[in-house]
Amino acid sequence: MKTEHIQQRVKNVREQLRRRHIDCLILTRPANVTYLTGFSGEDSWALATKGAVYLLTDSRYTEQARKECVGTTLVERKELIAPAAGKLVRKLKSAATVAVESSISVAAYRALKKSAGRTLKIAGDLVEDLRAVKDEGELANIRTAAAIAATAFRKAVRHLKVGMTESELAGIIDLEMRRQGAKVGFETIVAFGPNASRPHHQPGPRTLGETDTILIDFGARYAGYCCDITRSFPFGKPTAAWRRAYAAVEKAQAAAIKVAKAGAELEKVDAAARAAIRESGLPVYGHGTGHGFGLEIHEVPFLKEKADGKLQAGQVITIEPGVYLPGKLGVRIEDDILITDSGCEILTTQCPRISLRA
Amino acid sequence: MKTEHIQQRVKNVREQLRRRHIDCLILTRPANVTYLTGFSGEDSWALATKGAVYLLTDSRYTEQARKECVGTTLVERKELIAPAAGKLVRKLKSAATVAVESSISVAAYRALKKSAGRTLKIAGDLVEDLRAVKDEGELANIRTAAAIAATAFRKAVRHLKVGMTESELAGIIDLEMRRQGAKVGFETIVAFGPNASRPHHQPGPRTLGETDTILIDFGARYAGYCCDITRSFPFGKPTAAWRRAYAAVEKAQAAAIKVAKAGAELEKVDAAARAAIRESGLPVYGHGTGHGFGLEIHEVPFLKEKADGKLQAGQVITIEPGVYLPGKLGVRIEDDILITDSGCEILTTQCPRISLRA
Repeated sequence: MKTEHIQQRVKNVREQLRRRHIDCLILTRPANVTYLTGFSGEDSWALATKGAVYLLTDSRYTEQARKECVGTTLVERKELIAPAAGKLVRKLKSAATVAVESSISVAAYRALKKSAGRTLKIAGDLVEDLRAVKDEGELANIRTAAAIAATAFRKAVRHLKVGMTESELAGIIDLEMRRQGAKVGFETIVAFGPNASRPHHQPGPRTLGETDTILIDFGARYAGYCCDITRSFPFGKPTAAWRRAYAAVEKAQAAAIKVAKAGAELEKVDAAARAAIRESGLPVYGHGTGHGFGLEIHEVPFLKEKADGKLQAGQVITIEPGVYLPGKLGVRIEDDILITDSGCEILTTQCPRISLRA
Repeated sequence: MKTEHIQQRVKNVREQLRRRHIDCLILTRPANVTYLTGFSGEDSWALATKGAVYLLTDSRYTEQARKECVGTTLVERKELIAPAAGKLVRKLKSAATVAVESSISVAAYRALKKSAGRTLKIAGDLVEDLRAVKDEGELANIRTAAAIAATAFRKAVRHLKVGMTESELAGIIDLEMRRQGAKVGFETIVAFGPNASRPHHQPGPRTLGETDTILIDFGARYAGYCCDITRSFPFGKPTAAWRRAYAAVEKAQAAAIKVAKAGAELEKVDAAARAAIRESGLPVYGHGTGHGFGLEIHEVPFLKEKADGKLQAGQVITIEPGVYLPGKLGVRIEDDILITDSGCEILTTQCPRISLRA
């Protein structure tokens, strides 16, 4: 994590705190802690004040935190995290108004409040909103993750063979990402045949038939940042129904990508994809058309039917329409795009779409 | 999930509700929802009352819930989960006292309270405590997970070669578990050489040397249930320091296993392992000696220095002492045991400990 990026993030958070009259924000969401400090371990909270950023961690992570953190004051705790944070708050005499992120559990909030001995405000998605626009360091990591995922995909499909299980193919993709020094971004989805009609199918014992279809939804994680790609393709000759669904999804994705740019309303980008599916006469998918991602696999903004807000330059989002015919077939195509003032850049072109003629 | 096991769990939960004067408990922790309903999907809550168990899910999961749930009333939501749960609570007229699990986020709690239009009690680890003692169905799954992990380990170590990365070896282990129809229980840890001195090391680009040491901490997940195993072994001839550490950890683990039985105090089992390390003149590890596991990788009970309570028959826990010399070496040996009235049964004997003479 580059020093100037972290410094800018701290500056942005302080600006938000100033506007909201908060003297100290307690960050409890792991991705927010990583964002503001560079620390990638677990079980640690951050406290941001006007003058300092503290990382509250324990002895398991002190060595790691010293290496990773930028401009952060390390505080090693020996007790549970919530009471330790409360004690730290008590020492911050200039912090009159203290807020904590709303993702904190009720149990932790109660322990924190008791230990701090004062009222705490609940802060909304302050850091989450800042994270939506990526800086250059973040973009570089996302691009690397996308390149690694593309290579893993190309290598994995060489292993396709009749009789292999969904689960095995998922394992091969994961291994190919790891071989390139990345981690698995999220639990890889592999669905053969009609299993693909469930958007949240988990890879299982279903084996690949002589003539079949394959859906793979996967992503690498590089230096903490993930990508999110889905490819749907036939194994052998696809049915007319499958080809029709594929064509509709391709059109829907292109329609959304065409209108995605800084200033575009989230709802309208979502609607562009849905309209294309509707025109094809196929059922419109129940999930959102896309979502932001970065340190987490699902981040703001969310492209869905009822969404407030507009796209901003520097946001990175997925575009992933699908067609699902329960018990019959499922097709989804998902690419990652970087929003720019004039339109968008597709970040996942290196990951091949297996030609229907293959 | 067998009907009789679910029925017994519901009965046990109701008994706890009766004792605590709770008419309706809202379960928000995914593992608790799975435990009480059999449902393995996401974004769903359960409500347990005297007369019914409801699963609050959405259209993505309705098909799956119909297949998996036992004796559960399905409620399909179209809005966010917390307001939907609040509305359901309003309909339950006989539910005077409603409680929600303390792991709920403050944001969700506020939305739930607002929608329910009433005060909500916060319930402690009610379901978590019940989950600590495993039923026969759970034990069978844990045994299968342990057998799969052992086979994956044996297959993976055949791939060891100079120059391979930690990350690649982790990927091979994961693939071998998937090939047997299991999932990866948690993020596999592989640490070569001194990297093993960090108990939470994440596998990275470190390559295996001609003479090296290996630590692998991994587990399979079968039908929702995981196991948790660590093996430490040399690649080539180990140093005297490494052999000394290994011998100390072996003794420590044996000492804890010897005293582990129903009725044994958690602190005393923990202390037995620590005493053995102390006697060897090596530094005592900073983490706990073991923990329960099942649907989650870390569950009650926790064996640590200050722990209240005693082991109970039917609990399944890890025993995992270690020796860590920062920058030099790390050794941990972890096995899974089932607590019985007369002692314990080691569930992970099938996973070989690579002989020091190998």
